[in-house]
Amino acid sequence: MTKQKYINPELESGFRDYLPEEMIVRQMMCDKVRAIFERFGFLPLDTPGIEKEEVLTGGDANFTKQIFRAGLKGGNENLALRFDLTVPLARVVSLYQDKLPRPFKRYQMGKCWRGERPQAGRFREFMQFDADIVGSARMSADAEIISLMYEVMTELGLKNFLIRINNRKILNGLSDFIGYDSKSNADVLRIIDKLEKIEWDGVVKELKEVVKLDDSQINKLKQFLDLRELSSAEIINKISQLMSNSIVAMEGINELVEMTKNISALGVPEQSWKIDLSIARGLGYYTATVFETILTDLPSIGSVFSGGRYDDLVSRFSAQNIPAVGASVGVDRLFVAMEKLRLIKKSKTFVKAVVLNFDKEAEDYCQKIVTMLRKNNIDSEIYLGKEVNLKGQLSYALTQEIPVVLIAGDKEKQTNTVQIKNVVSREQKEVHFEDVVKIVEKLI
Amino acid sequence: MTKQKYINPELESGFRDYLPEEMIVRQMMCDKVRAIFERFGFLPLDTPGIEKEEVLTGGDANFTKQIFRAGLKGGNENLALRFDLTVPLARVVSLYQDKLPRPFKRYQMGKCWRGERPQAGRFREFMQFDADIVGSARMSADAEIISLMYEVMTELGLKNFLIRINNRKILNGLSDFIGYDSKSNADVLRIIDKLEKIEWDGVVKELKEVVKLDDSQINKLKQFLDLRELSSAEIINKISQLMSNSIVAMEGINELVEMTKNISALGVPEQSWKIDLSIARGLGYYTATVFETILTDLPSIGSVFSGGRYDDLVSRFSAQNIPAVGASVGVDRLFVAMEKLRLIKKSKTFVKAVVLNFDKEAEDYCQKIVTMLRKNNIDSEIYLGKEVNLKGQLSYALTQEIPVVLIAGDKEKQTNTVQIKNVVSREQKEVHFEDVVKIVEKLI
Repeated sequence: MTKQKYINPELESGFRDYLPEEMIVRQMMCDKVRAIFERFGFLPLDTPGIEKEEVLTGGDANFTKQIFRAGLKGGNENLALRFDLTVPLARVVSLYQDKLPRPFKRYQMGKCWRGERPQAGRFREFMQFDADIVGSARMSADAEIISLMYEVMTELGLKNFLIRINNRKILNGLSDFIGYDSKSNADVLRIIDKLEKIEWDGVVKELKEVVKLDDSQINKLKQFLDLRELSSAEIINKISQLMSNSIVAMEGINELVEMTKNISALGVPEQSWKIDLSIARGLGYYTATVFETILTDLPSIGSVFSGGRYDDLVSRFSAQNIPAVGASVGVDRLFVAMEKLRLIKKSKTFVKAVVLNFDKEAEDYCQKIVTMLRKNNIDSEIYLGKEVNLKGQLSYALTQEIPVVLIAGDKEKQTNTVQIKNVVSREQKEVHFEDVVKIVEKLI
Repeated sequence: MTKQKYINPELESGFRDYLPEEMIVRQMMCDKVRAIFERFGFLPLDTPGIEKEEVLTGGDANFTKQIFRAGLKGGNENLALRFDLTVPLARVVSLYQDKLPRPFKRYQMGKCWRGERPQAGRFREFMQFDADIVGSARMSADAEIISLMYEVMTELGLKNFLIRINNRKILNGLSDFIGYDSKSNADVLRIIDKLEKIEWDGVVKELKEVVKLDDSQINKLKQFLDLRELSSAEIINKISQLMSNSIVAMEGINELVEMTKNISALGVPEQSWKIDLSIARGLGYYTATVFETILTDLPSIGSVFSGGRYDDLVSRFSAQNIPAVGASVGVDRLFVAMEKLRLIKKSKTFVKAVVLNFDKEAEDYCQKIVTMLRKNNIDSEIYLGKEVNLKGQLSYALTQEIPVVLIAGDKEKQTNTVQIKNVVSREQKEVHFEDVVKIVEKLI
């Protein structure tokens, strides 16, 4: 006999399985989000996980490091796994221009992959769930996305959240306002974006080291960032005075004013959002409105639903300029948050009833019972495991937390009856076959 | 000005996008299948698209050619994309033995990838949708899967289908019955599996060339295959006599008898299934029951729902022997078939109402209207596109086949009214803001 070498079933780090206990509630959450997206008129789209590498990176070598390449052994295709759903959306919009509605409101849910260093709560494969409006330059489109976010958060039962809103044009105006080369803008934004993590002292240090700002310039930036503490209305008021020398900033301020008027008309209450001038949102492609959602009870978890306007993305594929705005649910983060806030209770099963199956002579009768339950839309099963006696099978029902147990042996088969046990109250009664559905429905 | 080089947005061959028109009905189909899987007590599981290559191939070099490898640039990880959901299930079962119910009934829906040569209806990335029962050796588990298949087909509106059933042990007994080296069994099964494609003459040719069977041996095989024409009951009767010299075949026959008794008790009508001794199901891992579902109106499309029992799969990862049985929906094939049979009608949208948005002064009023519709669970949108006048916006509603159009300009805003247009009947009436929901609900 040769000794068999077994293959290790552990996953590579950065990847994970979702067992039923987690998947059941995860799916409930995603189903709810999807229903709201649909109620807002977003239509479903699906695109492949594998795309041509140049489609994904746009030729930008910075991306290449983080991208999972995909290929056949010996093949020389330049294929890779998508790292988000926004780039594929841009590709779809440029490829099927005549087939898509204008504007195109779409949602998409799917796996994405990034070669990040695995760390707590960060995975190399993750679920992305996006809603975007492509082909509308109206600020009411941005407002619609924020209204959608508000509705999702509220219907998921989250009460203490804040949607923080900004406009990248205001940030782009910082170079005019403070007086530095606009080429340094990306660096300045990246540093500001870290404000919550590294605090003001850290920001000052990086601004001096990386962008070489002097004290008076840093002071002006502080003036700007200090407005954060004010109310949204006060911020608009002050910033319009402060940055009046920057054409681009004033454009952003006007857009922000219009957008926030729109979200009020869409029924988003004032306490759910706030202008926050420090919000930049990391990714390069945002061009105007940006927003993120934090949970005020769990600020450390970061944004759970964020996005913005990106008016240049389709230009990678064609000469057209198609404006777009959208947001992405952080499915994993949101799930973790809802668990911590006890808004989600994991459950082992949704099965409501199990028919035990311990008497070979009565198995056909048990199968008739479970078939009847299913025909009446009751999620149910017949015991199919190894345990042969009643006690062992009952303990399966208990472990699996199935609330109703139906028991039928040869005696019950002969008399056309069933023993129905309420696992919670421990009550048990004998009922006629015809009454089984009615009684089970009362118990679940 | 430099001339920009645009990136080609076409997909690599073998991959495809699903635009909303197709996704809407595809999702409806998948939602329905999922609901039935849940009603039968199958629990959801999710596993990563990327796995270690040796997990997927089990070290079998034959697989390696068809597998998409996945890796970071410069990384030397041996990762690959899954080609089915069965191998990941086996890995999960061996990894989380103590966390999973016994038996473990799970369903999983997800993308899989195979490096097949792209051809009509065959894609390199495809959706797999499986239901399996792991940890039950009972024939009633096999019957449960067939009952599930029957229910899915029926509830999807498919009437003319046939579930063809066999047991691999009967086929494994052919070497005893016919008298050839059991090492040739795989070849013989592979050739029989092609019976419908290459017909009997083709089978004979290959049996002579590949397995070197002589005429008397081929005659015995013909005797065996000719039983196909008989009814299920007659097949059982004749085959028990014919193959009584093969212990393994008799085991398979007894299992088949027990299994078919069980499917009757589970309410699967006799006209929906048939024993077919030629069914082998290509993949190597089946060990006993095998089945497939063909549409009698569209036989050329092949099997749309198939599977079988595989009792050895988990042994790749551990010394345990865990029996399992399951089936997989051919989502793409089934979808194509349902379209051909006109059971699916593509639709551009599920949006029931659109509020036009042509008067800047009344935009906030229009936003209040759409918010109210959504609060009342009506899938609806406010027009956000480029068209500025009523006519252009109406034509959007017509193109998108949205049945109800709501019109409100400044006049309506002042009088707190809305014009509601029934696109189908072309009727239009003015109603009060308070009555909008009631009227729209009547029209949809």
